[in-house]
Amino acid sequence: MSTHTITFLPEGVTVAAAAGDTLLSAATAAGIGLRAACGGKGVCGKCVVRVASSGSAGYEEVLGCQTPITGDAVVTIPEESRLADGHALAEDLTGGVALEAPLAEGVSVELPTEGEWYRETAAERLLAALALQRERFSEVTLELTALRALAALALQRERFSEVTLELTALRALAPLAREGGRLRVALADFDGAGRVIGVAPETATGTYGVAVDLGTTTVVVGLMDLVAGKVLASHAELNAQGRYGADVISRIVYTQEREEAREELRAAALDTIENCLFELLAPLGLSREDVIAAALVGNTTMIHLLLGIDPAGIRRDPYVPAVRSLPTLAAEDVGLAIHPRAPVFVAPGVSSYVGGDITAGVLAAGAAATAELTLFVDLGTNGEMVVAKGDWLVCCSCSAGPAFEGSGLDHGTYARPGAIDAFRYDAEADTMTFHTIGGATPVGICGSGYIDALAELLRAGAIDRRGRINPEFPSPRVRAHEERYEFVLVWGREIGRDDITLGEDDIQNLIRAKAAVYSGVTTLLDSLDLQPSQLERVLLAGGFGHSLHPDNAVAIGLLPDLPRERLHFLGNTAFAGACRALLRRDARLDLQWLARRMTNFELSTVPGYMDRYVSSLFLPHTDLSLFPSVT
Amino acid sequence: MSTHTITFLPEGVTVAAAAGDTLLSAATAAGIGLRAACGGKGVCGKCVVRVASSGSAGYEEVLGCQTPITGDAVVTIPEESRLADGHALAEDLTGGVALEAPLAEGVSVELPTEGEWYRETAAERLLAALALQRERFSEVTLELTALRALAALALQRERFSEVTLELTALRALAPLAREGGRLRVALADFDGAGRVIGVAPETATGTYGVAVDLGTTTVVVGLMDLVAGKVLASHAELNAQGRYGADVISRIVYTQEREEAREELRAAALDTIENCLFELLAPLGLSREDVIAAALVGNTTMIHLLLGIDPAGIRRDPYVPAVRSLPTLAAEDVGLAIHPRAPVFVAPGVSSYVGGDITAGVLAAGAAATAELTLFVDLGTNGEMVVAKGDWLVCCSCSAGPAFEGSGLDHGTYARPGAIDAFRYDAEADTMTFHTIGGATPVGICGSGYIDALAELLRAGAIDRRGRINPEFPSPRVRAHEERYEFVLVWGREIGRDDITLGEDDIQNLIRAKAAVYSGVTTLLDSLDLQPSQLERVLLAGGFGHSLHPDNAVAIGLLPDLPRERLHFLGNTAFAGACRALLRRDARLDLQWLARRMTNFELSTVPGYMDRYVSSLFLPHTDLSLFPSVT
Repeated sequence: MSTHTITFLPEGVTVAAAAGDTLLSAATAAGIGLRAACGGKGVCGKCVVRVASSGSAGYEEVLGCQTPITGDAVVTIPEESRLADGHALAEDLTGGVALEAPLAEGVSVELPTEGEWYRETAAERLLAALALQRERFSEVTLELTALRALAALALQRERFSEVTLELTALRALAPLAREGGRLRVALADFDGAGRVIGVAPETATGTYGVAVDLGTTTVVVGLMDLVAGKVLASHAELNAQGRYGADVISRIVYTQEREEAREELRAAALDTIENCLFELLAPLGLSREDVIAAALVGNTTMIHLLLGIDPAGIRRDPYVPAVRSLPTLAAEDVGLAIHPRAPVFVAPGVSSYVGGDITAGVLAAGAAATAELTLFVDLGTNGEMVVAKGDWLVCCSCSAGPAFEGSGLDHGTYARPGAIDAFRYDAEADTMTFHTIGGATPVGICGSGYIDALAELLRAGAIDRRGRINPEFPSPRVRAHEERYEFVLVWGREIGRDDITLGEDDIQNLIRAKAAVYSGVTTLLDSLDLQPSQLERVLLAGGFGHSLHPDNAVAIGLLPDLPRERLHFLGNTAFAGACRALLRRDARLDLQWLARRMTNFELSTVPGYMDRYVSSLFLPHTDLSLFPSVT
Repeated sequence: MSTHTITFLPEGVTVAAAAGDTLLSAATAAGIGLRAACGGKGVCGKCVVRVASSGSAGYEEVLGCQTPITGDAVVTIPEESRLADGHALAEDLTGGVALEAPLAEGVSVELPTEGEWYRETAAERLLAALALQRERFSEVTLELTALRALAALALQRERFSEVTLELTALRALAPLAREGGRLRVALADFDGAGRVIGVAPETATGTYGVAVDLGTTTVVVGLMDLVAGKVLASHAELNAQGRYGADVISRIVYTQEREEAREELRAAALDTIENCLFELLAPLGLSREDVIAAALVGNTTMIHLLLGIDPAGIRRDPYVPAVRSLPTLAAEDVGLAIHPRAPVFVAPGVSSYVGGDITAGVLAAGAAATAELTLFVDLGTNGEMVVAKGDWLVCCSCSAGPAFEGSGLDHGTYARPGAIDAFRYDAEADTMTFHTIGGATPVGICGSGYIDALAELLRAGAIDRRGRINPEFPSPRVRAHEERYEFVLVWGREIGRDDITLGEDDIQNLIRAKAAVYSGVTTLLDSLDLQPSQLERVLLAGGFGHSLHPDNAVAIGLLPDLPRERLHFLGNTAFAGACRALLRRDARLDLQWLARRMTNFELSTVPGYMDRYVSSLFLPHTDLSLFPSVT
């Protein structure tokens, strides 16, 4: 099979690609996100690229997903074909999701006034109109009793056990009912019970929800259009709880130290979310009242802290949280700065260390109820793994630390515009090519960039298998720094700022993180009497970048050495799961099912786990026979 | 049948009573409330009185309800046998009501810790404990799955569709669950869905609810012990909304005049209730958090105004309110100063002018589903009437004005300690005997006192049938006053304050009120092709006193002239209905059924109504043939 060289502009990234591969897969391999809402089926028409074949002038516009590689080419990717920042990969996972009974929706109704309805209360007319609206009657001329029966039937079909009017909605309704005309009703799903949370004249426009991924290190909030069912924009910030501790354990410890600590942590999380909301709503001229639903995912500790629930049980034998599954809450009770009565769906978790972010991720990744033996890994400050096949799922968690989210590293940052998410090193020319999210000036390196950097420097011999920088490496990029060595990844002069470097402490942080994940995966598989080679699919999730080179993830020993077509990088599946929960009732029900179904496995109780961890503190591993393709 | 004279001390009231009647009925006829929680069955032992037969020294202690009259007697009523003030008659109606799934209750549980429960979350252990507690298992040693099934079963038996933990309760639970020991759980019924609204150590004591009768003129709040199922104390105050208008129409008009009017009226009602709560809770050292449920009754306008819902529809064709039936609300949403998450049950109403106070009254009075043709009349600022037999109920409403609540009369007051609730006039001796609620120094006259006064003066010839005072009446009690005449009911020198008088304007107010009720009753009956004489039971309800002399109610033409044994005065049935709704789920369900079942009849649409009203503006009526026993 012949390979060709594809250069992507304006990045200037060149990759080798097999003949017959698509331009879309080559772009992904080059670390460039192309819009592919239809999943590469050639339907959505979003991945348009401009191809200039070698030696020819001019270019041809083609769909990246439908164009096979037949020779070397230079491909220009227009801005409109790029994944927007932040929600990039989530859009891939949520773009194809159709709406089905979203968590809240705006329903346009006209109150019936004919015949006996004239003598009914505004409240009853509204509820009937709502039900009839769903039945798509063109006009309302039936008798009252018949209509009541139909209304009950219609509501039942919607699977609401009942629909009630919130007091605030009732207050708004009374004067509007007299004025007549069509109304816009905000109808929310509280665990199968419908609630009318708002009533407005029909001139009110837009129905919005927010998906919140409350990570230990990074918080991502997406604004969704609940009519179109798509993410309009997203915004990420560092969790302001970070100042109280980098990981969940240190934050739990902090809550036990002083009386007001729990409230401080709660306020910090709420502040972070509120900042994100402001960044999302202000540019669109939306107010908090316009957001009528929220779906929230996070690990068990984050959910306890956000809701002000004492998390002490999580780190104390028998390691049981206060709650795993919550009823749908009202936003004002949670403290979220959206419509006060908006439903807040919190994805249910499995255990103290496998939370709702993982059930949401498994859902979005399609990792459950699969015919293929599947490993799902979510790489965040905690690393969680799920092995699933058919109707069983087993999960566990390890503490990876925040290195892959860029935290605690000299030049680390989270996945945001300007974060370097891909490196390619040409040792011969001593040139380092990189890609930043959004093509912006580099502000730091995010997780996927670090994985590339480690793999490229290991291949070039600039670092050894223990992660030490080779002082003899023939490049000025290697230099001493504070009694250690560091490698200059990007010269400051090229970007108009300080040099961007990788130091030995950073490398050790990253190695510990990947070792925790890899040893967790192998311990879990071993306990199930499985070998890594039996895995038919490995789904890597995480908010640490917008793309990942599978070769490099294997090269540093993060993932087992499997045929590359079995390895898939999915991006932030927790966020994608939150989006799904906003859009579909079956997703919300599936999450409850998943949380009950997943069997929790405690890594710390397995004697061999620590040995496996220590053996993994090499690049890729002590035992090279496990990584034949790397050596 | 011989009659005897019974004198009650310390009041000094003397009544004539038939031989064979009980002392209890004689006391009631004398306007003295005896405690009779068992309904006069001789069971509760509360109506102990001291009887001194004529000519004998010393006395004998007997039960008033079990002692027949065999001769003249002087009866002393000890303080402990008297109905306490305020909730007097309500206690009669609620005293015999057993608890059955109260609106909220305190449940003592111990979280299971055995076996696999050890690894369950605090939330799940609490919910299971709650369910198992009801099943009265002595210990918890079953397997987890079996227990889960049992828990589900137990909850179903309790007829809760589900039980969820409020976020605030969850916050309290987490640390308590770790400490161990028994917990006290506040479990509330939100329309069939259970909600845990609070969790506390078991040392917390007492479970309280409040019943609120939100009248146009008078607000009555009762504090109920939700374990014993009884009223601990009650307190009445004038509705502070009074300053915005005496009746519902003028208050609705006021809400349409200015933007902030609706909020003013809402605040006034809430302030009144809060004052009552303070008077009830402070002496017992209770805090607002100790009150975990509220049942609220009021006419349709009062409920709209309390909840901040625009009432304009009530007085505008087609006279339809914004809402008739509400879901159970949370206290903090209503603004009630009790436990913020306490359920607030609002009795559902029938129409704009027949509200939840009437459905509650019909329920407490047992006026529905009766074999006897029954007329139920609730005499408040509005007068509402219900005619019922078997499974039909027809209701209507008239505007009586607040006269019977003492409002707008020179010496009027509502039923409270010191209000004169009974008069007896000896024309020969020119002496007026009276009784005050609680035996306190007179502060004014309440409705039942005015009924007595009108009837006694009419009999004596001091006033004529048009309500004019006879200036020739041979008593210094008749005197001129501001170009009219007035009658001195109580000389100021006897009570150490100003004279208490009845003026001609007061009399006209009272006559208009009774005329509205009587003409309403006869119009409603006529529309059903019924004659007053066909009524087998007449139940008069209202908060205008603690007892009523049926003879006098007929004498002034308030009630139709029927054999007296068919006439019953029940006191404040709206309040009693609220108490029942607090104590029993079947009462709450019955109220919903009643509200749907009652057929509303619009008096104002009947051409003859105004004529009937005018004919009723006499004492007892223009047509004396309707009142043969009076003439």
